[in-house]
Amino acid sequence: MSEKNREIQAMETGRPGFESVEKGMVSIHGSIHRLRKMSGFSFLILRTAHELIQCILEPEKCEILGPDGAPWEGALKEEMCIRMEALAVEEPRSRTGWELHPARIRILSVPAESMPVVIHGKEIPASLETILDYRPLTLRNERERAIFRIQDALVRGFTEFLQQEDFVQIHTPKLVSQGAEGGANIFRLDYFGKEAYLAQSPQFYKQMMVGVYERVFEIGPVFRAEKHDTARHLNEYTGVDFEMGYIEGFEELCCMEEAMIRHALQKLPELCPQELKLLNVRIPQADPIPFIRFYEAKELIARRFNRPVREKEDLDPEEEKLLCQLMEEETGSEFVFVTHYPTAKRPFYAMEEEENPQVTKSFDLLFRGLEVTTGGQRIHDYAVQLSKMKARGMDPEQFESYLQIHKHGMPPHGGLGMGLERFTARLLEQDNVRRACLFPRDIHRIAP
Amino acid sequence: MSEKNREIQAMETGRPGFESVEKGMVSIHGSIHRLRKMSGFSFLILRTAHELIQCILEPEKCEILGPDGAPWEGALKEEMCIRMEALAVEEPRSRTGWELHPARIRILSVPAESMPVVIHGKEIPASLETILDYRPLTLRNERERAIFRIQDALVRGFTEFLQQEDFVQIHTPKLVSQGAEGGANIFRLDYFGKEAYLAQSPQFYKQMMVGVYERVFEIGPVFRAEKHDTARHLNEYTGVDFEMGYIEGFEELCCMEEAMIRHALQKLPELCPQELKLLNVRIPQADPIPFIRFYEAKELIARRFNRPVREKEDLDPEEEKLLCQLMEEETGSEFVFVTHYPTAKRPFYAMEEEENPQVTKSFDLLFRGLEVTTGGQRIHDYAVQLSKMKARGMDPEQFESYLQIHKHGMPPHGGLGMGLERFTARLLEQDNVRRACLFPRDIHRIAP
Repeated sequence: MSEKNREIQAMETGRPGFESVEKGMVSIHGSIHRLRKMSGFSFLILRTAHELIQCILEPEKCEILGPDGAPWEGALKEEMCIRMEALAVEEPRSRTGWELHPARIRILSVPAESMPVVIHGKEIPASLETILDYRPLTLRNERERAIFRIQDALVRGFTEFLQQEDFVQIHTPKLVSQGAEGGANIFRLDYFGKEAYLAQSPQFYKQMMVGVYERVFEIGPVFRAEKHDTARHLNEYTGVDFEMGYIEGFEELCCMEEAMIRHALQKLPELCPQELKLLNVRIPQADPIPFIRFYEAKELIARRFNRPVREKEDLDPEEEKLLCQLMEEETGSEFVFVTHYPTAKRPFYAMEEEENPQVTKSFDLLFRGLEVTTGGQRIHDYAVQLSKMKARGMDPEQFESYLQIHKHGMPPHGGLGMGLERFTARLLEQDNVRRACLFPRDIHRIAP
Repeated sequence: MSEKNREIQAMETGRPGFESVEKGMVSIHGSIHRLRKMSGFSFLILRTAHELIQCILEPEKCEILGPDGAPWEGALKEEMCIRMEALAVEEPRSRTGWELHPARIRILSVPAESMPVVIHGKEIPASLETILDYRPLTLRNERERAIFRIQDALVRGFTEFLQQEDFVQIHTPKLVSQGAEGGANIFRLDYFGKEAYLAQSPQFYKQMMVGVYERVFEIGPVFRAEKHDTARHLNEYTGVDFEMGYIEGFEELCCMEEAMIRHALQKLPELCPQELKLLNVRIPQADPIPFIRFYEAKELIARRFNRPVREKEDLDPEEEKLLCQLMEEETGSEFVFVTHYPTAKRPFYAMEEEENPQVTKSFDLLFRGLEVTTGGQRIHDYAVQLSKMKARGMDPEQFESYLQIHKHGMPPHGGLGMGLERFTARLLEQDNVRRACLFPRDIHRIAP
């Protein structure tokens, strides 16, 4: 078998574009991604589910049929969906090492208008706003769609790892009667005459489920009504959440996350080699991820960059970048766990350090300059949780169903939530998190 | 190695409860599920993530330490979380064939109050309402939690199958500017001063993504503001949705679903054998699933049960049951595809039959008397879609971003949406779909 045929057979396996290979003839379907008329022939780029394939179309050698099966009198157009029978021919100058010479094209659908944006170049020559306005079309660009194949591969890797570690996948409600994270950034709606909210995280529910299965995870939408209009915020994002019981410290959560990330990154080259190459992805090392305490990190940044500390109890975006830069220089790691965040900045369910209740047994994971995960150990004792809520001026009666678990026995436990789009964006070194979200939602955008 | 040790080692593999096995001693953690005092000893049932394990506790042979590590002066209580070192002893009368004799118990947490419902029997002796009110606790019952391990296994099976078939998993927005299914059953909310809705399905988005990857799927929440208060309706449920391009007819979608269901059902005994046994699950055959046209089904039911036809263009719940009964008698299948639903009852994107535009290229899948899936081929031609919308009095401008795909080239395509809770409920022969939903949402319930 020639090299060419082996490649085509490899492509055929489990891929819907290819349907038969017979004496060098293939039957294949896809969209006309690009069409360029030359003298006597046309270059046609066929976009299948996985590849862009170069085709040489010689009008006199190819029969063209319309959607009704009758000979097609008109011209071919970009974004037509077609099925073709073609001869596969070796062609070292093409990207795949071969090309197709169509003998028969059946047009399956004819676009009504030509494309409003050019999608067949490497990059789309348009602003992010325009790219997002035409998202159903611009995702057909090969680089755009590569992003979400890589995101899919990440989700596969995370899921596979968590299942191997005995986590049960759960589906918890997004319509809720209390917010878990507090604050103003919550969407409200009318639920048959009652006020309801959109879940800011599966926090309460995953904790409840620790009492049932010990280890659970969920990958699903999370809603934040934040008015931030930045390159790092989305108002709806995909949370990768896990929660586990019988831990002896929050460090176990970090180790679990490190192993989960490592597993997913290791799987990428197997699941989407073409896409990694196309986007020139630098896969980071996550072995091991260094730790630094929050206050140490603050001090270090202030000292090394001679920078006044403005916000005492949080890292600002610039500090996250500087810290990552520092840690990479010192340890070679592009990830860093920042631990022991101030109690004042963490939610009411965060467990405090016994020796110093001003800080919590919590952490953020920073990756290439951006916070991508927040996690920590939770309070499991009823009396402790109750007194902390009261100290914060919260009404425990409002949280009655959540507090059932504390009242009736919970193991020491904790967990974390990762933002899938943020993780993807940093992995692919995209400047804006919107680029790693299929249909982003922000303060100005709710369509498409 | 004795039978007992082999079993324990098997349990140990990848399961967080067990931590070491050494000369017959195991270190294990879990909750005290049940405690019964006898003369001179106690029966203690330990609930781990997977099992209920019988333990014989002889006070003089067991050291008990409190959460602080000091000797525990009080009594043990149900729902305490504990870690124990114990001797594993063969005991043919126990469910597992062996039991544990604890030598050391470390209490990790002490419940504040005793349980408001009895969860350690086979069934919980309470109404469904009470079971749902105390859901975080009642899910600790072994039969309740078995339901959702089986649901998890189904999701794993569906996902694995779709990935093998080259479907890409997507995450589409739940905050949308248009409803896909139309009608009044849509939740509204304020989105930074604009009106927004909760997605009734990922319909528009999965169609858009067919133009990108050809085959996509999503498993995520779906919101329906229906006021039905029945055993078959939820206001938020988990949709298993897929959509595929380059189909030649809707029958391909049915075949794909049949194969997906078959794959998932075949995997169940491997993923959750104990749970299947506990719930006495009858796994149905899905090979092959019979087809019947909608009007034939209506007629058949009317004739065989001598039943007047009330609703001409839909099957009512009673008819769904009768049809399943009939089909099972005639074909042995507990599934049936009902095809060619009337156009009037299908959404605006449903493709009509060329020969008879009164019916659509669509189907429902019924399973043990209940509709569990709706699917069909979609309109891909812009002019056809536009004229159908206009005929229905819809304003195409409202759907501008959706119609981008029709305007700029879409292959013939279709897909389906399955209700995960409905499928699970019918598989487990639960009378109410709420029993197959972790935290159900209905017209009266939004907590826990």
